[in-house]
Amino acid sequence: MFKEVYENVGEKTPLVHSITNYVTVNDCANIVLAAGGSPIMADGIEEVEEINSICDSLVINIGTLNERVIKAMIAAGKKANEIGNPVILDPVAVGASTFRNETTFKLLEEIHFSVIRGNASEIKAIYEGSGTTSGVDANAEDKIEEENLQAMVTLCKHLSKKTGAVIALTGAIDIVANHEKANVIYNGNPLMSKITGTGCMLTNVVATYCGANKNTILDASTLAVAHMGLAGELAFKKLQEIDGGTSTYRMLLIDEISKMNYEKLKGGINIENR
Amino acid sequence: MFKEVYENVGEKTPLVHSITNYVTVNDCANIVLAAGGSPIMADGIEEVEEINSICDSLVINIGTLNERVIKAMIAAGKKANEIGNPVILDPVAVGASTFRNETTFKLLEEIHFSVIRGNASEIKAIYEGSGTTSGVDANAEDKIEEENLQAMVTLCKHLSKKTGAVIALTGAIDIVANHEKANVIYNGNPLMSKITGTGCMLTNVVATYCGANKNTILDASTLAVAHMGLAGELAFKKLQEIDGGTSTYRMLLIDEISKMNYEKLKGGINIENR
Amino acid sequence: MFKEVYENVGEKTPLVHSITNYVTVNDCANIVLAAGGSPIMADGIEEVEEINSICDSLVINIGTLNERVIKAMIAAGKKANEIGNPVILDPVAVGASTFRNETTFKLLEEIHFSVIRGNASEIKAIYEGSGTTSGVDANAEDKIEEENLQAMVTLCKHLSKKTGAVIALTGAIDIVANHEKANVIYNGNPLMSKITGTGCMLTNVVATYCGANKNTILDASTLAVAHMGLAGELAFKKLQEIDGGTSTYRMLLIDEISKMNYEKLKGGINIENR
Repeated sequence: MFKEVYENVGEKTPLVHSITNYVTVNDCANIVLAAGGSPIMADGIEEVEEINSICDSLVINIGTLNERVIKAMIAAGKKANEIGNPVILDPVAVGASTFRNETTFKLLEEIHFSVIRGNASEIKAIYEGSGTTSGVDANAEDKIEEENLQAMVTLCKHLSKKTGAVIALTGAIDIVANHEKANVIYNGNPLMSKITGTGCMLTNVVATYCGANKNTILDASTLAVAHMGLAGELAFKKLQEIDGGTSTYRMLLIDEISKMNYEKLKGGINIENR
Repeated sequence: MFKEVYENVGEKTPLVHSITNYVTVNDCANIVLAAGGSPIMADGIEEVEEINSICDSLVINIGTLNERVIKAMIAAGKKANEIGNPVILDPVAVGASTFRNETTFKLLEEIHFSVIRGNASEIKAIYEGSGTTSGVDANAEDKIEEENLQAMVTLCKHLSKKTGAVIALTGAIDIVANHEKANVIYNGNPLMSKITGTGCMLTNVVATYCGANKNTILDASTLAVAHMGLAGELAFKKLQEIDGGTSTYRMLLIDEISKMNYEKLKGGINIENR
Repeated sequence: MFKEVYENVGEKTPLVHSITNYVTVNDCANIVLAAGGSPIMADGIEEVEEINSICDSLVINIGTLNERVIKAMIAAGKKANEIGNPVILDPVAVGASTFRNETTFKLLEEIHFSVIRGNASEIKAIYEGSGTTSGVDANAEDKIEEENLQAMVTLCKHLSKKTGAVIALTGAIDIVANHEKANVIYNGNPLMSKITGTGCMLTNVVATYCGANKNTILDASTLAVAHMGLAGELAFKKLQEIDGGTSTYRMLLIDEISKMNYEKLKGGINIENR
């Protein structure tokens, strides 16, 4: 099943439309290409519907919000819903401001999302309808460890039931869940939190996988998360050999996304069902 | 002649003003520096004319369009025309939306461009006055090969006659043409299409060369395209030695732009007149 | 004293809010992480005050100005002043347009800055109340050398007295001064001027240090400038070993920021009091 999901990406070269922040947008475009898709970033209200209608999936990322792009997000999201394209939400730093909270809930009201991808603080902020996120990184107290894993799995399933979206909660351990089934992914490396945009990039990898696998969103999202995590592991191994720093790590991470093949992926991923 | 064109860049350090998309803007700025120019990105309507008047050339790139920047593009373009600075158009994904089509034709009406740089789908969309571009990458059916090369050369010459601009159509094979003369460039590497922004970057290299060679636009554009293609070849050679991925390739590409000298360039470029 | 300043960064992981240009924003975010802080970029007028109130410092960088962000800059700056957070100004290319001049003086009127960080042309443009800056890089005639160093030190002290801000004038030699004391820093490498955004990045490193050292701004800024300069030296050494170009140098520069420790920093910095 994962094999087919993986191969669909290579065969279809899904076109991913991203309305995203200007901080990490270049890495997002490059990682879509590295993962086997083709990226297009367009946020003009005059064209987002038409652009989306030639694409296979849509990313909405609230990293750098303003009124102009919110309108474009809603128009693009509605069009994607209409034509059956998966829409992936990345609620960057929701909980950190009223504006982000209100925008997120407005987006959730107006658009049906196939996947919501966030860190523990962001997913909790959405679940609780408010939040205490202190920036773009997850709060220290929201770290996912074995002790709180089952509770977070349950939270994800509940949130999935409430929103109809697959929930991809990523951190030290990753959870990808719908309302009844959760996949727990044990890939990744702590250094991924020392480069900006790993979350945003992952969201775009998820959109690449989902764009080529519109009817198996849970599996597609799970494999995308595992692909990213394994790339993070392989990149870290290489980094140690050459004694590099965080910027080299960023490069190696995208490299490993681009150098993946199914055999390597299958051999390296560590997924558990809950 | 190419020697003088090349040396002019180093001697003049042309100041390149870019009004460009936020996806690849950083790579564009870095490649201008690597090619021997100095970049300035400014898109506020309040200052674009004044900024352009201290510069040597202007790039207008429609990658992420909105009403605010279109006004700035037109104001900056008119000023550049007035003072005799070359203006280079990069019609990213024209053909993919009505908004991009209309904006492109409006720009072509209001501004005289010295060079139009695009992939085959974009150049055809402009030539035909409409388009079927499916995203930021060229359509598969628009691949330039030996069989359709002569037809594309003719199309470029016609479009040059119509617009008064040198046409730089880049892809597997590159064509740089005015209304009567075409240079076909056989440099480059297929991996260049696996990183975002190689087209945008090339447009900025063209602007760097043209800013230092205002009276020999055809030669300046040709050498810029060859410089980029050769850098792509040299970077690929290095990439294979170290078994890197697409992100390392992006870095090596800009590296090779910065490490060029005239002897290396002369020895590596492969240009044919048609 | 420097030891405490350095250790405060690691202990506090200051949250740095940047309202900055879209050209170098990704490198700015990554360098904050590399230096031990946590970045957040937000420029929506609806949220900048709330976002700033959870942060430790604020960067205002005028690299790509428009009316919308100027309002956000002023709102965020006033909030930061109110809660006692250091605000760092990066007056990119002030002197190059009336719009940049007027905006800079408006910002200086409305906001109290803890630090102003610029190249010689920018600092002189502010000092003289007008300017002749020709782009984002310092003018050739504004190069800081031993002959004009003392004059520039005096200028920085005067400007500090006038504005109440620590002045960080960076170039071939760096000066960090308040109204009575100046630190001259002899670290760095000329190649730093061949990659875009080293100035913007440095401003963010300064904000990271100041966010963790709110009561010792002169020392914090001095050590930040020295940290950046030493990283530039170490990166250049590595670059020569592998025969890389400017893009590799950018990566190595951020790498060396991330790989710093106090012993290395102490052993490598070269600071003189004037």
